[in-house]
Amino acid sequence: MAETIKVGVLGATGAVGQRFVEALAEHPWFEISALAASGRSAGRKYRDAANWRLESQMPEAAADVEVVPVDAKSIDADLVFSALPSDYAETVESGFAKAGCVVASNAGAFRTEPDVPLMIPEVNPEHLGLIDVQRDNRGWDGCIVTNPNCTTIMFTLTLKPLMQFGLEKVTIASMQAISGAGYDGIPSMAILENVVPYIGGEEEKVESEPLKLLGEFDGSEVIPAEFNVSASCHRVPVMDGHLEALWVGMRDDPTPEQVRQAFLDFDPGLSELPTEPEHPIIVRDEPDRPQPRLDRNAGNGMSVSVGRIREGIRYIVMGHNTIRGAAGASVLNAELMYKKGYL
Amino acid sequence: MAETIKVGVLGATGAVGQRFVEALAEHPWFEISALAASGRSAGRKYRDAANWRLESQMPEAAADVEVVPVDAKSIDADLVFSALPSDYAETVESGFAKAGCVVASNAGAFRTEPDVPLMIPEVNPEHLGLIDVQRDNRGWDGCIVTNPNCTTIMFTLTLKPLMQFGLEKVTIASMQAISGAGYDGIPSMAILENVVPYIGGEEEKVESEPLKLLGEFDGSEVIPAEFNVSASCHRVPVMDGHLEALWVGMRDDPTPEQVRQAFLDFDPGLSELPTEPEHPIIVRDEPDRPQPRLDRNAGNGMSVSVGRIREGIRYIVMGHNTIRGAAGASVLNAELMYKKGYL
Amino acid sequence: MAETIKVGVLGATGAVGQRFVEALAEHPWFEISALAASGRSAGRKYRDAANWRLESQMPEAAADVEVVPVDAKSIDADLVFSALPSDYAETVESGFAKAGCVVASNAGAFRTEPDVPLMIPEVNPEHLGLIDVQRDNRGWDGCIVTNPNCTTIMFTLTLKPLMQFGLEKVTIASMQAISGAGYDGIPSMAILENVVPYIGGEEEKVESEPLKLLGEFDGSEVIPAEFNVSASCHRVPVMDGHLEALWVGMRDDPTPEQVRQAFLDFDPGLSELPTEPEHPIIVRDEPDRPQPRLDRNAGNGMSVSVGRIREGIRYIVMGHNTIRGAAGASVLNAELMYKKGYL
Amino acid sequence: MAETIKVGVLGATGAVGQRFVEALAEHPWFEISALAASGRSAGRKYRDAANWRLESQMPEAAADVEVVPVDAKSIDADLVFSALPSDYAETVESGFAKAGCVVASNAGAFRTEPDVPLMIPEVNPEHLGLIDVQRDNRGWDGCIVTNPNCTTIMFTLTLKPLMQFGLEKVTIASMQAISGAGYDGIPSMAILENVVPYIGGEEEKVESEPLKLLGEFDGSEVIPAEFNVSASCHRVPVMDGHLEALWVGMRDDPTPEQVRQAFLDFDPGLSELPTEPEHPIIVRDEPDRPQPRLDRNAGNGMSVSVGRIREGIRYIVMGHNTIRGAAGASVLNAELMYKKGYL
Repeated sequence: MAETIKVGVLGATGAVGQRFVEALAEHPWFEISALAASGRSAGRKYRDAANWRLESQMPEAAADVEVVPVDAKSIDADLVFSALPSDYAETVESGFAKAGCVVASNAGAFRTEPDVPLMIPEVNPEHLGLIDVQRDNRGWDGCIVTNPNCTTIMFTLTLKPLMQFGLEKVTIASMQAISGAGYDGIPSMAILENVVPYIGGEEEKVESEPLKLLGEFDGSEVIPAEFNVSASCHRVPVMDGHLEALWVGMRDDPTPEQVRQAFLDFDPGLSELPTEPEHPIIVRDEPDRPQPRLDRNAGNGMSVSVGRIREGIRYIVMGHNTIRGAAGASVLNAELMYKKGYL
Repeated sequence: MAETIKVGVLGATGAVGQRFVEALAEHPWFEISALAASGRSAGRKYRDAANWRLESQMPEAAADVEVVPVDAKSIDADLVFSALPSDYAETVESGFAKAGCVVASNAGAFRTEPDVPLMIPEVNPEHLGLIDVQRDNRGWDGCIVTNPNCTTIMFTLTLKPLMQFGLEKVTIASMQAISGAGYDGIPSMAILENVVPYIGGEEEKVESEPLKLLGEFDGSEVIPAEFNVSASCHRVPVMDGHLEALWVGMRDDPTPEQVRQAFLDFDPGLSELPTEPEHPIIVRDEPDRPQPRLDRNAGNGMSVSVGRIREGIRYIVMGHNTIRGAAGASVLNAELMYKKGYL
Repeated sequence: MAETIKVGVLGATGAVGQRFVEALAEHPWFEISALAASGRSAGRKYRDAANWRLESQMPEAAADVEVVPVDAKSIDADLVFSALPSDYAETVESGFAKAGCVVASNAGAFRTEPDVPLMIPEVNPEHLGLIDVQRDNRGWDGCIVTNPNCTTIMFTLTLKPLMQFGLEKVTIASMQAISGAGYDGIPSMAILENVVPYIGGEEEKVESEPLKLLGEFDGSEVIPAEFNVSASCHRVPVMDGHLEALWVGMRDDPTPEQVRQAFLDFDPGLSELPTEPEHPIIVRDEPDRPQPRLDRNAGNGMSVSVGRIREGIRYIVMGHNTIRGAAGASVLNAELMYKKGYL
Repeated sequence: MAETIKVGVLGATGAVGQRFVEALAEHPWFEISALAASGRSAGRKYRDAANWRLESQMPEAAADVEVVPVDAKSIDADLVFSALPSDYAETVESGFAKAGCVVASNAGAFRTEPDVPLMIPEVNPEHLGLIDVQRDNRGWDGCIVTNPNCTTIMFTLTLKPLMQFGLEKVTIASMQAISGAGYDGIPSMAILENVVPYIGGEEEKVESEPLKLLGEFDGSEVIPAEFNVSASCHRVPVMDGHLEALWVGMRDDPTPEQVRQAFLDFDPGLSELPTEPEHPIIVRDEPDRPQPRLDRNAGNGMSVSVGRIREGIRYIVMGHNTIRGAAGASVLNAELMYKKGYL
């Protein structure tokens, strides 16, 4: 692992794109070689093209990079991170994979394709085996690996250690941050001092993605897990951090204390990955935690915090939606791929 | 109904007390004869004693009333509304009932007493029969009638028309407004740009009160309804309006359209009560409604709005927590009592 | 004044347009005959075309009106209210005036034209005389009358009673509500838990419009008043209500008590106009008032509240930006025109 | 400077106290030896006593420290930082100074004492000379040094480089964050979706403190600077970061460009102090900056950002109120004292 890998960011100027730049600026394995964005931004310095909206300052290393078009020919990189809109992502990501690039995508375009891994490293690292299937099927030198929707990631990470009790039924009510919709996504008049009980397409993703994530890879395909998810998704006036109230029905009917212990014992063995937090699941025992404002930055935004584990089994999950739920998720996927020799 | 009834408000200066004053200022049947509050306020004009915090202007009729102590001897009224804290309410409300007053209470002190009605007029008006039991038991000339917790009221009102399908299981995630905790209840640093997934004592009330409300009065006691409620309660940065995501399991497994029709058909026959809204349950068919800011004032804050009725059965309920969920609830109870001859 | 005047609303679906509909729905003199909006909305019912965002419910009378294109030929009205964007307003409003309509405009297009009145009825009703000049100049049967920018209106109304002391210098820092930018104007990520110290073009308007408003009409033109205004404009996370901190330098150096008395004594004699509030300027003596949330609805949103009158002279002004500062301002202008025989 | 200095924090559990702990946890010169707080907290671990409310995680080093009473006898430290309420601070801080401690205080109790330095290191480091006067006067072995009110600090830092142009008159409108009032200071119902145009005692401090700060120390006392400050202070729904709109009248009438250059040229020569930022004043040239959410963490919260420098001279100042405006201010004062040999 002596030399660094050249990486590009596709859609580098948007809300998730900025999180990629923040995460990669001082990465020990990856080095930004290209920041790509659509027409208007290309040709300008990143400093000018990106309307930087994070509380951290824009990394100096990125500020003077000239933004290039989103085009495999313009970009010299072994690995690209995609923060593209889903409709646009389909063609573009295929192009990069065909051109030999590894694509770690936060977009939704390929998540449901049978030969594309939908992955959370702590949950289903073995699904990386799908890459060989994908290359065979499509004749690509590169490949595409995706991470789930931000809301899915938070609670699915906590379902993994509960698999031992026999998952049967998950009911989830989400309270989601505005950054999940992108910078221009939600007008202030829509959400200030309000709750909007609807997020287009979200419940469908939240109900289907966990089944693939927790499914079994048999060497050629993923057999979906068999349990039911029912979701109600809501937008709240919070900048970052999705909070989720969960009810989890399990065959073995564990006690709250057994569930708590399962979270504490959870060790995915990924401590060699640079952005893997010390505790991917943090258990909070205070009665009123986790909270978005206080817990979203735990583990540099990569830890998911759980609390209020009660009979039912009910509990609260909270994680940073644009870090653990988006850019950080893709980066962690890429770290695992690097470690496993796919780069 | 020619002459008006003299009414007092106990705890008139607080957040719910102000809503009582707002609701009663121009009431056709009731006339404010006394505004009562604790030590410091007594003796001052209401204008000076109450730190008025509503967007409506303080009613002129109330502004110059001298606030009196919370004491049955100081108050000349046939009916008192209680916005007292629960611990303090127990002794005080008993005193008024003993002294011959009808007490319509928003406090929690007597809600679980077997001989005290816990009532929503559209849901269980027949429970008023408990008043005779109460008077027999306690030797009171007056009586106490209570309304439920604000969160309970919203969704229990929508459960009533679903009783016909055989209620089995209710799962509820609430997103509650800050006014529910009173003016000084929640520090701004706790809730600005945040969600707090805990409200002390709330889930217990939400899980037990609906069983009494939907129970059967057999002439001497209320036999609780038999279904299960599981709640997760959360505070969000909204001024007024509790939004609730519900999953309702029913024996007959109705379709969303049947549920919608049951809401539309619901007619409790209370149109003679002055504050009863034309539609106690409003069905919104837009994909993103109801919302606190847009729907909390429907029916002058007395209508509950439902929307997003989906397979599951899942739906969203929203209502104004300090009107339909508190002061308005007590006033409607009192109107029913007046109509039924208890005043 | 026996018969009602037929009125149209141009740009009826937007944030200010909705305020026009709300204000006109039960107006004693005016009756909505046409709701007009741009391409996509035309042909649909107002209920469907307007994404209603006010806490009041959409007036039933308007809900079923079919929206028409913004075109003088499609509209049968003696008076039209314009909530159009300024760039688009120029051509459209001229067309209506030429066609014989009276145009009461909230747009900026004609405010600085020498022969177009820029008017606040309590401040400069005599400027209506410019209409004759305007008709002579332009050969129009109709005419255009404008109201100022929302920020200008609030404080200029309070400057009127201070003219007697010899205005010399006004320094103003505004804290402006998000509704001033229209429904899609400000992304939530820009303003949640934040202040934006810039509003494009606002300071220029705030510094120039008061000079025309407080200028003298000599029968043929308005001689601008001679004093200096220096403004700093800021956006804050408030839904409605612009709050302004003012320093007013005056030749006669009045005391705070003299200023307070001048506000109390201010009586523009317009009580016959239906939407004129009992007190166009309300003086609040509490140390911490006015506040947007508590005072914006005073006088049905048509009163401006002042407070904290201190040595300096410094004071705070607050008013409802989309009522007194926009739709209500135009309606009041139209009421004065009707009263004065221009309709 | 080989050995570290033992420091205590008085009032360590509150909002500013937590910022002290955050700032000192990894300080190269100072080492926390005592965390002190009032009655109820004493004897408990800091982890349990402090309701940690910062987005950063509680420093591990502090979490297990046992909180001690606020009492010079209980505390082994050469230097104490005081985040005490002003009324309580007077007696306590004197006690520590008498006992030989250096007290770096954020409290208001001693700011106006003629023999106590009120200091911003970049503004008036020479005022440290007052310590000798103070010790002579009071017979203390230790001493007290104070930093100004949070609102004062931000703009006074920017006035320093403008002194060369001859300050005459400063007009300031502040938009202040809620954290300035402490955790329980402002109820959420007071400030959500609102502005409160009043902060008790604030304007008096803002108008007087800059005169002492920019005054001349003649070896025995500080001769106040001669210019006028007029302030209007407002609370806005922002967590951290005070934004201030300034008008600065100067004898030499500099151009905006000259003012900008003066800010850029400002170099107080304090780069050896560990928490001194690279640029104590950052000039933002974007039209809409600085903003609290985007700029408060610049320079680890120790830089003040200015922007919108216009004719007038008008400009915007913004800084982190509990870091640069409170805990960080005291720490920087202590660093300067250490460097100058007072520790």
